[in-house]
Amino acid sequence: MIFIAERLNGQFHDVRKAIEQQDRGVIQKLAKDQTDAGATYLDVNVGTAASDQEGAMKWLVEAIQETCDTPIALDSQKLPVIQAGIEALKPGSEFIVNSCPLNKRDDEAILDKYLGLVAEHNCSLVTLTMDKEGVPQDVDKRAEIAMMIVAQADALGVAMDKLFIDPIVLPVNVAQDQPTYLLEVMGQVKMMADPAPHMTVGLSNISPKTSENASLINRTFLAMAMAAGLDSAICDVFDTDLMDAAITADMLLNKQIYSDSFLKAARA
Amino acid sequence: MIFIAERLNGQFHDVRKAIEQQDRGVIQKLAKDQTDAGATYLDVNVGTAASDQEGAMKWLVEAIQETCDTPIALDSQKLPVIQAGIEALKPGSEFIVNSCPLNKRDDEAILDKYLGLVAEHNCSLVTLTMDKEGVPQDVDKRAEIAMMIVAQADALGVAMDKLFIDPIVLPVNVAQDQPTYLLEVMGQVKMMADPAPHMTVGLSNISPKTSENASLINRTFLAMAMAAGLDSAICDVFDTDLMDAAITADMLLNKQIYSDSFLKAARA
Repeated sequence: MIFIAERLNGQFHDVRKAIEQQDRGVIQKLAKDQTDAGATYLDVNVGTAASDQEGAMKWLVEAIQETCDTPIALDSQKLPVIQAGIEALKPGSEFIVNSCPLNKRDDEAILDKYLGLVAEHNCSLVTLTMDKEGVPQDVDKRAEIAMMIVAQADALGVAMDKLFIDPIVLPVNVAQDQPTYLLEVMGQVKMMADPAPHMTVGLSNISPKTSENASLINRTFLAMAMAAGLDSAICDVFDTDLMDAAITADMLLNKQIYSDSFLKAARA
Repeated sequence: MIFIAERLNGQFHDVRKAIEQQDRGVIQKLAKDQTDAGATYLDVNVGTAASDQEGAMKWLVEAIQETCDTPIALDSQKLPVIQAGIEALKPGSEFIVNSCPLNKRDDEAILDKYLGLVAEHNCSLVTLTMDKEGVPQDVDKRAEIAMMIVAQADALGVAMDKLFIDPIVLPVNVAQDQPTYLLEVMGQVKMMADPAPHMTVGLSNISPKTSENASLINRTFLAMAMAAGLDSAICDVFDTDLMDAAITADMLLNKQIYSDSFLKAARA
């Protein structure tokens, strides 16, 4: 399982304040703590409050790379902010671009531009299964967009292990038929594409923000989605129950060898 | 989710002792407590230690039905023990026969006999995907046996909602490739049979008995299997974390309406 840790995001109050006050300590502690908790990547999102988003991204990337080598997922819907992040990275750094926004009229040109980043930097790319009509509400349209992305990446020579397809999670209280659709889309993409791209989700979006059962909903959906082919998630790596569920699902899928101490082994 | 509660089984020390000493109180408390914990059915297995298995089954069934109306799953590999259970049940009781042993040379004749019980009593039947060669180690053979069972049930006019297919869970430490196979078998059966039979497992078998993580392994596999089509399990209904995971998976599969108190609602 590829864990993309979600906490370095300006939508969280502590991170927004740290960006405003240029407080490296808060950022570096979150980077280190998430790494210790099992993050494969650190998602970095300046949030919408930052007045200079490019400058904030540059500052965040430099602050993080001063303190740890965990690869970064540069998270923005704005290409200049992504570009600022790329320029701030230490040369040769592994990273993910999160994500390519497919919601404009010229989707294919935009996708080409982002796939060009992958070719240029040997980085990875998250793409959402949406189009100019927005987020499709049905299984077939999402699977169709996913396969279009796969085909275009393949045509440009992008390796499937550099591509992360995100079928877009919505809160279960808003659209209760969506989780089943997502499971079906993941199953279809994994069946149709060989080799298959990674499948990822913004996991915390599944649970209503006010729910006292958010962690339970998140980890239960994660295990279900992993059975359907999910192999990555942007998630809260500080949620120990969630990480336990993910490690156990990986073990049950025979991706990690069983031993009586498989949890400890995975964490080591 | 259909919960078949596992504790009224002579392999547990307290139940074996209660059978030996004809202590109705122990049995009746387990029946009531499992019902309160969410059991849809109470599995009843006299265990291998009972010298008079037919008598023990009769006594257990009568003891349970004195105290609660929760339907019973008569659990034995011996037809006379099942028959003794059926005769002891109050007339008109809903019940499951668990299970039809398909490991002899005359599988089809045996299956016909058990399917005859379903027709005669309007009960349900659990059948294991095994044959005279034992438990198949691959996906295709299990799916083939499952579809043979479905076809034979259909030919005899047995409704699919009376049929529970059990693809046979083995401990993950014994055969770590098996959980993935099981998920695939469930997916195939649910895809090929329309209407589909129930899919069930002996859930506790997935976790090594000595594992300190048994509950975590059980509930993680349950959520994964529910994503693949599992809709029933013989399990420990006293495991609150397990029941929470199952209720949450049912909610995520849109089988139970979401509300902020969906856990409480499901338990009510």
